[in-house]
Parts: sequence; C-alpha cells; structure tokens
Amino acid sequence: MFSFNLKEQDEISLWPLPQKFQSSAVAFKLSPASFQIVHAKQSSAGPSCGLLENAFRRYELYRLETFSQLVYEDYYGVNNINKTDISDFPRFAHRGILLDSSRHFLPLKVILANLEAMAMNKFNVFHWHIVDDQSFPYMSRTFPELSQKGAYHPFTHVYTPSDVKMVIEFARMRGIRVIPEFDTPGHTESWGNGQLDLLTPCYSGSSPSGTFGPVNPILNSSYDFMTQFFKEISTVFPDAYIHLGGDEVDFRCWESNPDIQKFMAQQGFGTDYSKLESFYIQRLLDIVAATKKGYMVWQEVFDNGVKLKDDTVVEVWMGNKMEEELQNVTRAGFTTILSAPWYLDYISYGQDWQHYYKVEPLSFPGTDAQKKLVIGGEACLWGEYVDATNLTPRLWPRASAVAERLWSDKSVTDVGNAYNRLVQHRCRMVKRGIPAEPLFVGHCRQEYKGL
Amino acid sequence: MFSFNLKEQDEISLWPLPQKFQSSAVAFKLSPASFQIVHAKQSSAGPSCGLLENAFRRYELYRLETFSQLVYEDYYGVNNINKTDISDFPRFAHRGILLDSSRHFLPLKVILANLEAMAMNKFNVFHWHIVDDQSFPYMSRTFPELSQKGAYHPFTHVYTPSDVKMVIEFARMRGIRVIPEFDTPGHTESWGNGQLDLLTPCYSGSSPSGTFGPVNPILNSSYDFMTQFFKEISTVFPDAYIHLGGDEVDFRCWESNPDIQKFMAQQGFGTDYSKLESFYIQRLLDIVAATKKGYMVWQEVFDNGVKLKDDTVVEVWMGNKMEEELQNVTRAGFTTILSAPWYLDYISYGQDWQHYYKVEPLSFPGTDAQKKLVIGGEACLWGEYVDATNLTPRLWPRASAVAERLWSDKSVTDVGNAYNRLVQHRCRMVKRGIPAEPLFVGHCRQEYKGL
Repeated sequence: MFSFNLKEQDEISLWPLPQKFQSSAVAFKLSPASFQIVHAKQSSAGPSCGLLENAFRRYELYRLETFSQLVYEDYYGVNNINKTDISDFPRFAHRGILLDSSRHFLPLKVILANLEAMAMNKFNVFHWHIVDDQSFPYMSRTFPELSQKGAYHPFTHVYTPSDVKMVIEFARMRGIRVIPEFDTPGHTESWGNGQLDLLTPCYSGSSPSGTFGPVNPILNSSYDFMTQFFKEISTVFPDAYIHLGGDEVDFRCWESNPDIQKFMAQQGFGTDYSKLESFYIQRLLDIVAATKKGYMVWQEVFDNGVKLKDDTVVEVWMGNKMEEELQNVTRAGFTTILSAPWYLDYISYGQDWQHYYKVEPLSFPGTDAQKKLVIGGEACLWGEYVDATNLTPRLWPRASAVAERLWSDKSVTDVGNAYNRLVQHRCRMVKRGIPAEPLFVGHCRQEYKGL
Repeated sequence: MFSFNLKEQDEISLWPLPQKFQSSAVAFKLSPASFQIVHAKQSSAGPSCGLLENAFRRYELYRLETFSQLVYEDYYGVNNINKTDISDFPRFAHRGILLDSSRHFLPLKVILANLEAMAMNKFNVFHWHIVDDQSFPYMSRTFPELSQKGAYHPFTHVYTPSDVKMVIEFARMRGIRVIPEFDTPGHTESWGNGQLDLLTPCYSGSSPSGTFGPVNPILNSSYDFMTQFFKEISTVFPDAYIHLGGDEVDFRCWESNPDIQKFMAQQGFGTDYSKLESFYIQRLLDIVAATKKGYMVWQEVFDNGVKLKDDTVVEVWMGNKMEEELQNVTRAGFTTILSAPWYLDYISYGQDWQHYYKVEPLSFPGTDAQKKLVIGGEACLWGEYVDATNLTPRLWPRASAVAERLWSDKSVTDVGNAYNRLVQHRCRMVKRGIPAEPLFVGHCRQEYKGL
C-alpha cells in the first residue's frame, strides 16, 4: 500500500507542470482546524481583493490549485504536504476551451462543471460557440425572436440573460474569460427563423427555392441588425474580445440569387464571391469596432484579405498547411491562436491525448517576433456528437494534454512522465466530481460516484 | 410544435422493432388514476408470477417495455396511446452485453444502470467478464485471498457476495441472465497474487525471471484449485452456463519453463503448445461439467481441437475470417454466438452504430441446420479505456443497434428508418436517466439531468 502513497505524493503528479519547483522530503501535516492561507506582506493583493478571497474560500482546505495538488493523503487518511518551492507562470497567455452549444444544447450544469475542470487545468478562456446553423439558444433582449424561433425549444433549450451572467461570473471567479462567438455570415441558418430577411434566399433556376444561405450582404437591414445585435453582445459579455467567426462560407446560395449577382456586377467583384464575403466582414468589423471591442476571427477572414484592425486575433484551425498559415498570419503581424491540432471532437481508439501533447505550437519557421505573436491555443469540442450525456468524459483528461502544452515550459515533452502525472491528475478530477475518463487500465482510489 | 408530437407518436419509434405490429390512428387517453395492466384470462401466468408482478410495478404507468414505448405525451402533457396490435418475438435467443470489470472496476451503480438500459433494449444476457490480468474484484468465499491480493483495492474495488447477488436479482427481475466469465488459462495474472503456485513461473535462461504466465497446467494443485473454485461459482451464479474463456494464451512463458518442457516431452506434445493448452482446457471442462453447468468458450478453444460437450456454446470474436469460423463451428455442430463485429470499445468519429446495424449474422455460407446453431450475439465493451466515468454513454445507444439486429426480423435493415426511431429511443433512455449519447445533431425534449 505504501508504494501507492509514495507515488501519489511524488512531485511529478502536478499538472500542468510548474515552470520551476523544488520539492523536499520534509513533510508537514495539515490540520483542518488550524490551517489557513494568508496574504504575504509584500503581496499587492489583500483582503479587499474579492476574487482571491473567494478562491481561498472555494478551495476550503485545498485552496489554490497547485497548492491543492501538493497535498496528499497518507495511509491513515492524514493530509500531508512536503516543503516545496514553486515559481510558476504560463508559457502562453491564451489557453482556451471551445464548447459548442448549438449542435446540441448544453445545460448550464455541464458548462459550469467544465469551467471547474478548466480551472483545475489552468485554462483561462472559455470560447463559447453559442449559436450556429442548428440552433440559437442565446436569448437576446433586443431580438427575443432569435431564440424563440431559433432555439431547439424556446423555454427549456435557451440561455437566459441570468444564465449567461452566471456563466460569466462563475468563470470570472476561476480566472476564466468568456469569449462568445457569434459566427457570421455562414453558420447562421438558425438566425433566419427569428429574423426576417437576414439570410439570403437561395434560388433554384429563376425562382426562390425556399431555402436560405448566409447572411444577406447586400441589404442595409442586415447591417442595421448587426449593429443593434452586437451593441447588446458588447454589453452582455464583459471581455474585451468577441469572436466573429467568418469560417466556411458556402457561396452556392449567393451564386444562385439574381439580386446578389447584380450587386456583384455593380461592385465590380466579377464572380469572385470571396470579395463579397470580405465586403460583408469588413462592414461587420467596423460595426464591432465601434463598440470598442476587439475581435477574433477564424483564419479564412485573414486568408481572404479582409482589412483587419491591428489588434485582431486570428484563430488557425485548418489542419492542412497549418505551419504555412501560422507563418503567413504572423508575418502579417497579427496575433494568433492555434486550434488546428486540438479538435477534440475527433475521437479514435487509444491514447490520442499523446498526439495533442506532442504538438509544439512554435515549430513553424519564422522570426522571434513572429513566434511572440502566437499567444496560445484552444482545445475545441465541436458538438455534432456531444451533449450533456458524454461531453465531460470526452473532453477530460484529453484537454489536459493541451493544458500542459500551453502552460508548461517548451522542454516539458516527456510522454512517459506526463502519463504518470496525468493518471493522478485525472483521478484528482474524478475525486472532485468531474467524470474525466481513464487514460488506460488502472483505478482511482476514489472512483466516480455519479453515473 | 405539433409536427414534433406527430413524430414522437409515430409507430416507427419503437426499438427494437416488433416482428408484427399494426397501429391505428385511434388514440386513447391514459388516466394515471384508473389505468392498470391485468392478466389476460387465457394467460398461463397469473398474480402468482412474482417476476411479472414486479415488472408491472416497475413500469408504474408505462409498464412493459414495448407498451411503454407506445405511450406519447401530447403538447398538453397528456399521455396518449394509439390502438395497436402487436405480435412479437425475438429473432435470436441470446442477446448479450459483455462488460469488463477487471481493466477498470465498475461500481455496482454503473452495472445496475446498464442492466436497466439492457432491459429497455430487450437484451437478455449480461456476460460479466468479471476478472482478468489486471484485477480480481470477485470476492470468493472459498479463496478470499484472490480479491484481497488481486483486486485494485481489497475493500473498495471488490464485488462482495451480496453485490453479486444484487446484480443477479436485479437482472433476473428484468429478464436478464447473468453469465460470469472466469477466463483461464491466460488472462489470469491477477489470480496469481492470491493463489500461490497457480501460475507458471517464467524463466529467463536457466533461472526464474520473477514474472508469471498462464495457469500452470502440469500441477495437480492447479486442478484441485479449479475444482473448488468452480464449485463455488456454480452455486453463486444460478445460470445454466459459465463462460470459461480460453482466449489469447501466450505460449512464451510455458516455452521458457524447464518443467513444462519436460512435461511436454513426457506427453509427446513435441513443441506444439496448443496441445498443452488443450490438455488444460480438457481437464477444466471436465471439472466444470461435473458441476452440472454448461459452458461457453471463446473460439480458440474450438480452433485448437479441444473435445467439447455437445451443448458447448462457442463465441466467435475474431474479426478476420469471421464467416469461415462461423461455418466451421456450426459444421461441427456447435451452438454459436457472434461478437466479432460488435466490439464497441473500438470507437471512431461519426455514426459507427450503422456498421453494427448492417451486420447480418447469418450471411455465412451454410445449411439451414448450421444457421439455426447461431443462437445470437453479444456487444462487447472491453474495459481498457472505459470506467464509471464514460461507460454508459459509450455503450448506448451504439449497443441499441445490436439489440435490434438480434431481436427484429432479418428484413429490418433500413438505416434511415432506424435512425429516426433510434433518435427517439435514445431520448427515451435519457428521459429515464440513462446518459445515452447523441447519434448526431439535435435535441431531446428532456435533456440529461445528471452530469
């Protein structure tokens, strides 16, 4: 039995691995009655920092994450901690998880549980892909019909203003930013249910087919709508950034529509519909810039040559030519985040976490200045095959591999060592009520108690 | 909203599809206060049949499974059922699920929940792969050290006699047999911790290496042990069959051991270690036959030419040459069950349930008499990557595809139709608390409430 305890107290079970630490064999016993965390004399934060006070409270005895991971229970159930010096900081500033609440509605409870798991893994950005073609669960005060007609169900499958507030606050208390994504002009089918004339009517021959395509970029009403809509979004979500999407615009509907064709001719776009897409995005970006928010976009917006504000963040998601894209985006001077190698909705048999772990985000050819523009990455769990029933075990601990890649030093690449720590870390998540799936055969001292 | 209701009340949402049914548009309203299920006058069962009485009670208003699936809730929350005539019977008698509680310990709660899901899908055999190399959670009254030293933990990661009783009774109430598997002579590493001299000492050169191989087939003590052990198993598990395993025996350890080499020579086996394997299995089968139980074995036992009792069930699990194997086994006159195409621990991106659904178990070349020997199949969820955190959503509704293949008529092969019904069926499971994962984008009226 003791070998197990020794393993559990081993410093290597920290996750993600701190930048520097020095553990010793000197063990202290922790008494729940007398133990407390206090502010250091030289600390600039104090009891007036509510966020930190709340974090202290939340961790009860095991208060702050790294600290909590140092505590181990011995054979007699006594909590111990070894004398340890740690100096730590993240390698990348942006460490995100993308969840998709449109393909399937994600009940609040699932989102909050995953924010908890994110905090345990030192992720600090929740990229909330909140709406898409399939459903529009965001309840807008300005345009209530968007969710009334675009959600899977207008009452049970929506995020009310207070739900959204709760997510933001729950995240904030854990040091997590919430960046909402409202993807346009594609991926917007569900918007059309509640907003007349927003989408392009597709034609079959000379008459409308009854189906709709991307946002209609030739109507002023589209831009009036976006102006009002993003004015609301910019106040509801406090983060300095909004993700505007811009990916995978299907041109076929635009091509079929005679009014669009006429507009293309007037503008001198020829038959290059990416110019029309850029025309739309350009106006959208101006609208959002006017709200004083920064914006993030998927890589196509950059690829299509849209003029972007200097502080735009370009998200590289396409797996093919990833290094070339990173080179191009950073050469153009744009801040970049990487999600291409970390599409965790793709599953396969075995330990695929190792593939995520082995990625080196800065392996592309480029100058130091270019490398500095890569501020982090995101693990994306798209929702086609994921809902409340399977999201959490599918995401964790696979996303933990990404967490360490984005937090720890570049030199931390030993997969065997990572395996041993991650096995412990996943049991720690299980112990705290997160149904993180196993890496391989074995057991946790405390198995998952839910179903 | 009404289109949704019409869809839900559609007869095609039954799963697995009954052999014959005739639905009508005549709808009856069900009143919880006055509704009851009674025995038909001509029924041979009566109130004295406790099992049926309990099934009535368990289903409360929605009492028997098919019946319960006919009940639909209308827009106003009223329960309706349409006049329907059903005549039904299973195509195959053996419809099993294999769960593996050795690679990971499965808490009782998970096993019971899956028995519930099995009943909803008309599975009738729980193949309990209870022990293996990695751990021995079965608490034996005769040999308590097997779990004391072979389980992941002697108190928290074991199945006590009362746990086992509960599983068997919970299953019985739902019309499910429990067939335990105690796999020998391979897959037995964990047995060796608590049973001295049971396993073969492996040699490195001329001295023991300290590691152990399969059950030692040359010692009388091995057979004495098996006699006592299976005497216990035959009383603890009431089913007429025990699964004896016999798969994947690695000969390298036997080959390294000088005592085994000597024995081989004495017996005139040459260097054909499959003869030694057969020697062991033959004696084991005789031991188990003396307990008056029938036995199931994995296909290798047949392939190696072991003399089997006539009522032996051979389980075909190897994906390569599956049809050839079915031909051979049935030509030899043995009853057969098929699991090869249904290893659900293998996962991939997308709707792999369709592959399981499209399997036709009787597609192999053979006579009618041979076909009749295939009495069913099993969906296997091996435990290398599965524990309480992810088992249920990984198994359901993927196993439901196997359920319909084994229950419904051979002609029921329309994947589109199956998709529509299975979407409803999976929501029905979710509604009853089973976290069955989604097939694709969409929603359930009542989403999963757990985590």
